[in-house]
Amino acid sequence: MAAACCCCSPRLNEDNARFILLAFFITGYMLIGAAIFAEFEYDKEQEDREEYDSALALFRQRYPDINISDLNQLLEAHADASSRGLLTSKRPRWDFPGAFYFVGTVVSTIGFGMTTPQTDEGKIFLLFYGLFGCASTILFFNLFLERIITCLAYCMKKCHERDLRRKGLLNQQPSNSRSSEGDSDSLEAWKPSVYWVMLYLGVAAIAIACSAAAMYSPVENWTYLESIYFCFIAFSTIGFGDYVASQNVKYQNQPFYRFGNFIFILIGACCIYSLFNVISIIIKQFLTWIIRKTLKYCCRCCKKKQQPKGRPRRNAITPGHLKRRLQMQSKANHADNSRSPTTDVPAPEPDRLSFDSDDSDSRRMSGEMISMRDFLASNKVSLAIMQKQLSETANHARAAPPPRHTHSHSHYNGGGLAGGVGALAILNSKLAGEANKQ
Amino acid sequence: MAAACCCCSPRLNEDNARFILLAFFITGYMLIGAAIFAEFEYDKEQEDREEYDSALALFRQRYPDINISDLNQLLEAHADASSRGLLTSKRPRWDFPGAFYFVGTVVSTIGFGMTTPQTDEGKIFLLFYGLFGCASTILFFNLFLERIITCLAYCMKKCHERDLRRKGLLNQQPSNSRSSEGDSDSLEAWKPSVYWVMLYLGVAAIAIACSAAAMYSPVENWTYLESIYFCFIAFSTIGFGDYVASQNVKYQNQPFYRFGNFIFILIGACCIYSLFNVISIIIKQFLTWIIRKTLKYCCRCCKKKQQPKGRPRRNAITPGHLKRRLQMQSKANHADNSRSPTTDVPAPEPDRLSFDSDDSDSRRMSGEMISMRDFLASNKVSLAIMQKQLSETANHARAAPPPRHTHSHSHYNGGGLAGGVGALAILNSKLAGEANKQ
Repeated sequence: MAAACCCCSPRLNEDNARFILLAFFITGYMLIGAAIFAEFEYDKEQEDREEYDSALALFRQRYPDINISDLNQLLEAHADASSRGLLTSKRPRWDFPGAFYFVGTVVSTIGFGMTTPQTDEGKIFLLFYGLFGCASTILFFNLFLERIITCLAYCMKKCHERDLRRKGLLNQQPSNSRSSEGDSDSLEAWKPSVYWVMLYLGVAAIAIACSAAAMYSPVENWTYLESIYFCFIAFSTIGFGDYVASQNVKYQNQPFYRFGNFIFILIGACCIYSLFNVISIIIKQFLTWIIRKTLKYCCRCCKKKQQPKGRPRRNAITPGHLKRRLQMQSKANHADNSRSPTTDVPAPEPDRLSFDSDDSDSRRMSGEMISMRDFLASNKVSLAIMQKQLSETANHARAAPPPRHTHSHSHYNGGGLAGGVGALAILNSKLAGEANKQ
Repeated sequence: MAAACCCCSPRLNEDNARFILLAFFITGYMLIGAAIFAEFEYDKEQEDREEYDSALALFRQRYPDINISDLNQLLEAHADASSRGLLTSKRPRWDFPGAFYFVGTVVSTIGFGMTTPQTDEGKIFLLFYGLFGCASTILFFNLFLERIITCLAYCMKKCHERDLRRKGLLNQQPSNSRSSEGDSDSLEAWKPSVYWVMLYLGVAAIAIACSAAAMYSPVENWTYLESIYFCFIAFSTIGFGDYVASQNVKYQNQPFYRFGNFIFILIGACCIYSLFNVISIIIKQFLTWIIRKTLKYCCRCCKKKQQPKGRPRRNAITPGHLKRRLQMQSKANHADNSRSPTTDVPAPEPDRLSFDSDDSDSRRMSGEMISMRDFLASNKVSLAIMQKQLSETANHARAAPPPRHTHSHSHYNGGGLAGGVGALAILNSKLAGEANKQ
């Protein structure tokens, strides 16, 4: 039992474990969400259903000589016409601006569905059109993400630089910053925290949604809440289609409103896409952290069952100062190994040391309780390593020396943020040209 | 005029240029698409509009004593009830399975819109629920992409290995492959081509869509084309909602059908997401290639206007054998420089050499015509470099020496596939923890 330990091949296990854990997490999230929405909406649906039935009954009572099949036919035709915007109170949907709006909902995958192709040739064309359109828009969103993050990073770096200068930590002359190698290096390596970026993007998204809602609310006769709801549904590319802007025949300042609608949806979608991605990086870190915690706990249990060893793991290369401390404590560990996992005494396990090897803040290594502080700390370390690895090669590589703690990095990042989370990063690391085949 | 040359700061220009070029490309694509869809659909819409108007006129002619406002009220109530599934021919939408289906369309951003929250509390809850739900699903799609590409790469590598072994190019004993360092190294570095991966994913997506359509078509009474159309709209997360599966009150084998529907949409969406991302990497390469071509052409024009120089660009480090050839040809170039850009004689420009420096296939350097062959070749090179850079650091770094052609790499990859295209790759390289602040 103990021989089939879960920590035999940590990298493989971790990738799969994270994927499965996320699937379970999403399933649970969906189940909880479904229960809450059903609770909110079920009664309202029943009421509305009864209301409609009574309205229909009342009508038939008032006009008893109407043929029921005639009425049903008309009702069906009307429902179809209404959903497709054929009523005279709505604008024609397949004129050029309408078709452009439709095409926009396709390539952005919003898909309101206020306009859908009815002809067979339209449907077939859509299959091919959507394939390249959606792929292009995914790329556009990614490039926007890159631009906005670059811009944010630049601004935040400038602020950081100003702060440092105010505190007198940085050389006062920005022109000859080459002279203070250490300072400028640390400044160059400085990158903004993912939490701050999330905050800024969140604030930007809220600002855009509020401004857009202020535009939609009076023009479309929606309440402010409905406008905000529409903004979220449109920007997140969910696109239910229960509220769709710019569908009436006539608006005041129609061209301006259409342009504003287009711009708000474009910017909003880009911004929310970026926000989703920043949040997903944090979710991934959280999952990794849970798995590491669980694995470590399992390993400890296995070790206790097998034999209590104090030697470090073969793959774990630990920095010098931690190694020395480790050697000093290895004998103590033999005695301490039987302690409860919630001990408060700093008892650095080999795994733990290599895990936190870059942080060098040994306080974080104390305690086995799963705390938010720990999670944030591990997040910091991982992002810092990631950034270092990527910036060494990708961003203007200047014949940098091989990373010092290579092994411990690869051990730590085995799960692979640097190995590629983001869609194209994964592709980048996994695929190659046919150069080797020739 | 020539002094403000577009090639002054190639990296910055290229990133922005690609973004702008893509925006123009998508706008053009949308305009063309809108024109085509308007062409396909406009007449049909007019016909249907007239048909509905005449149906309404006929009804009112047949029943002249109906109060017009009564009828309109009923029609509106019916249209609303129909769009929200309140009719007795449809299943209740806010029971638990219905709410689960709804929540699935939210987190996946499909957003069919067959069920939407009607209460204020439902709408407000959706804002927060969707934020984390969509972020988790984006992460799920990315992790799926990682798994599927890993799996594909593994299978393709095995096939490649078998092919090599059949040809006798690889050591026959797989057990002691360590002895043949060169062979096993080249095999280890081997990665599948992005085109083959696109092909396999495309085939998989088509297979899934066809199987799913074969299930939907008889059960939902759709034509096969309608089923395929529904599959594409659902899998690509566009989700118009004009066709939505599993909405009737009763099906044969209802639990199986619901499960099949769920699984098909899940797998299909993951697969199409992966396909979109693979296509978008190729689109990005294509844009980069266009920009490089344009820049090079501009540079040449500038040089012609200024002074015809044969010396290589400062940033371009070229491999030895190409450098020697370059030095030999530099005098010839002086004479050749006034030729038309479409000359067929091999006249390797310095830029061109550094661009293709890793390929070492000098045949590709002949001719200035923008050919598909050239594009494919540059794609190969870029992917190979990318893979090398990433695999050296991210994938189990084994204290690899710094890349040989660092400068020419960074020159080539300045636009930055390795610098991070994919959503999280961008974040990974741009963001960091707060470790440096402390």
